[in-house]
Amino acid sequence: MSFSLAPWRPILARALHRNRSKPHSRYLQLATVNVKGQPSNRTVVFRGFLEKTNQLQIVTDTRSSKIKDIQHQPWCEICWYFSQTREQFRLSGNITLVNQETEDKRLQEARHTLWGKLSTEAKQQFNWPSPGQPIEPIEENFCKQLSFIESPVSNFCLLLLEPEQVDHLELRGKPHHRQIYYWNEQKNWITQSVNP
Amino acid sequence: MSFSLAPWRPILARALHRNRSKPHSRYLQLATVNVKGQPSNRTVVFRGFLEKTNQLQIVTDTRSSKIKDIQHQPWCEICWYFSQTREQFRLSGNITLVNQETEDKRLQEARHTLWGKLSTEAKQQFNWPSPGQPIEPIEENFCKQLSFIESPVSNFCLLLLEPEQVDHLELRGKPHHRQIYYWNEQKNWITQSVNP
Repeated sequence: MSFSLAPWRPILARALHRNRSKPHSRYLQLATVNVKGQPSNRTVVFRGFLEKTNQLQIVTDTRSSKIKDIQHQPWCEICWYFSQTREQFRLSGNITLVNQETEDKRLQEARHTLWGKLSTEAKQQFNWPSPGQPIEPIEENFCKQLSFIESPVSNFCLLLLEPEQVDHLELRGKPHHRQIYYWNEQKNWITQSVNP
Repeated sequence: MSFSLAPWRPILARALHRNRSKPHSRYLQLATVNVKGQPSNRTVVFRGFLEKTNQLQIVTDTRSSKIKDIQHQPWCEICWYFSQTREQFRLSGNITLVNQETEDKRLQEARHTLWGKLSTEAKQQFNWPSPGQPIEPIEENFCKQLSFIESPVSNFCLLLLEPEQVDHLELRGKPHHRQIYYWNEQKNWITQSVNP
């Protein structure tokens, strides 16, 4: 499959570069829809793009509720605000789950690579009790150490968001500047300036 | 109707206070669901609480797409991350729209009050061409001045989010600390510590 960099990639790369002094510039808000048809929204960490694709990588625990949401409705929307440069990206598209069962070699390799890049501390969190459940005696349950951390644990999951629409808003300047990028039927990118 | 401060209010007030040096600490991400059942997510500004309620105030343009989303599905979720203190609030509940047609005097008064608090620059934005539409010759359309700015324009809309569940996560400290507040059937608040 041939790959070409989406036209919004250099714009996003520039924002990441200009905001690099702020660690939270790699945090973004991921909105999903749950089985009741209600939105859920939480902060996640951007883990770079999957090689030779325009897909954003996010890691999560298979026990978190966003997994059920995505299985029910794979279409998601990211809102990413850069406080330094005062610009916002909204990226929407389908999410693919890559877990222990995924047979695609390339995706499974990406999952392993990302696990390898996590800090030991971040890895240990996958050994914590089930997120969102009523808390149990805290001391013991959060201190269990993973004995083997070379390979991803079974509940380590990679999310791949393939954007089909990107809405870029710059609040600096008057009037604000807003550009929309979207797939046409041939999955080619169309760029359109719109009113802010 | 009697009013009592929800148990998460002091916690949120503390976060706002501790992060007050960052103007973006009053920016939050609002997720809605559109008519296709897909999530939408965008940054909005927190405009304080409606007096004697636990309802968050947000202002918007009636021409923005979030209005259609909310008319279709009033249940929304806010994700609010405070970068200074590294804590996240997720607040979910129904949104009430307060527009020019709203007859409730108290709500209409709140709409007028919030309009009065906007900067002249922010007010002028409601005179800009329809948001999200293909851009027209920019110079003329964005320079029209509202001649009368004392009263809210017809497309000025107040959104009131009444949280029924609040999920507070603190990333400082190991393990992270997470508390959930939710309404029971009598609309009394229950507080529950959960696994982060």
